[in-house]
Amino acid sequence: MIQLYHFPLSPFCRKVRLTLAEKKLDVELIDEKYWEQSSEFLRRNAAGKVPVLRMDGLTLSDSSAICEYIEETVPEPALMPRTPEKRAEVRRLVAWFDDKFHGEVTSKLVYERINKKLTRQGYPDGTNVKNGVKAIKFHLDYMGWLLDQRRWLAGPDLTLADFAAAAHLSCLDYSSDVDWNRNEGVRDWYAKIKSRPAFRSILADVVPGFRPAAHYADLDF
Amino acid sequence: MIQLYHFPLSPFCRKVRLTLAEKKLDVELIDEKYWEQSSEFLRRNAAGKVPVLRMDGLTLSDSSAICEYIEETVPEPALMPRTPEKRAEVRRLVAWFDDKFHGEVTSKLVYERINKKLTRQGYPDGTNVKNGVKAIKFHLDYMGWLLDQRRWLAGPDLTLADFAAAAHLSCLDYSSDVDWNRNEGVRDWYAKIKSRPAFRSILADVVPGFRPAAHYADLDF
Repeated sequence: MIQLYHFPLSPFCRKVRLTLAEKKLDVELIDEKYWEQSSEFLRRNAAGKVPVLRMDGLTLSDSSAICEYIEETVPEPALMPRTPEKRAEVRRLVAWFDDKFHGEVTSKLVYERINKKLTRQGYPDGTNVKNGVKAIKFHLDYMGWLLDQRRWLAGPDLTLADFAAAAHLSCLDYSSDVDWNRNEGVRDWYAKIKSRPAFRSILADVVPGFRPAAHYADLDF
Repeated sequence: MIQLYHFPLSPFCRKVRLTLAEKKLDVELIDEKYWEQSSEFLRRNAAGKVPVLRMDGLTLSDSSAICEYIEETVPEPALMPRTPEKRAEVRRLVAWFDDKFHGEVTSKLVYERINKKLTRQGYPDGTNVKNGVKAIKFHLDYMGWLLDQRRWLAGPDLTLADFAAAAHLSCLDYSSDVDWNRNEGVRDWYAKIKSRPAFRSILADVVPGFRPAAHYADLDF
């Protein structure tokens, strides 16, 4: 059985969970209080971060390394295109969300509102929240611009780029930080991805003490 | 001709330069004052970051997407191992340096001492510098631990993981932030990588107003 050490509201863990589910790989989810940095956890991943995946007798870490490993060993259904050029575009967008979007939006909103309280690091920083609220608009517009030209974010097919983006947006949707009226193309894209069977486990997530937005699990939001 | 829009002391650009040079691909380096965020630059990469590579008629961004593209289209000499398991280890370590090491060390030392002044964002933050000085010790020890068991960081062969690590350490060496006496294994590894022809252009880098450490370009440091 594949095992994933994870935290429910981690976009990096969600990207891995979506990838596993799309490939129809059953996984045992193990909640990891990563902020406690237990010595057992640090033995699994010296970086002290989730996700950590146990699969094929290996202990894998870093969400992109994990997703590429799954894609290489379980190629169907494909989540990466066939040409180097198109793969570069997928990887560029995965990095866009996991690096830029994460730094400018997810860490400024979800982490300030939820993770900080959960890990007893104090109250949300108002400036961070304000900057996050501003930055998400730019990102939704950029996604809308991509989706004007493409069926999915990186091209005609669903790829890891869509899962990276959906992983972040679903965390932000949990904390009511997404204005779905801003861009119709983005809302339609999210409705499509949200209705996939792979998304079910994510819509069922609950973080004790933090209720999700009312429409969080609603496929008709 | 391949063109790279870069900043000399960017570890992400250096990783790409090392990869290109190892593959014996000639490149025209174009200095990019990325912090000015010119509209022309933002058209090339909406993320507003270096490196940006022009190759095969494409405009590519994100350093890892770029390096994977080069590896896929110019496979020799190989910088990625052949099995998914070993590739996952390379990608884990590339992310270790570009994410964790970058956040805990490079951004705390090189960016505080050099980039901040260059981009007129004020003086180094003493707490950041102190934390960076502390964190680099842990990372050098971790590298030393890996190199006790392996010839190169990810295994028996030189890979992108070594270039990611060397890219960061070479920037920190420029700002005199590496104690090469801390770990003999790490020093020997850096001496090996520094003497490769691919490293020459990096050792010749000069950022006006900031002298490199006296031993920076010395192969016998």
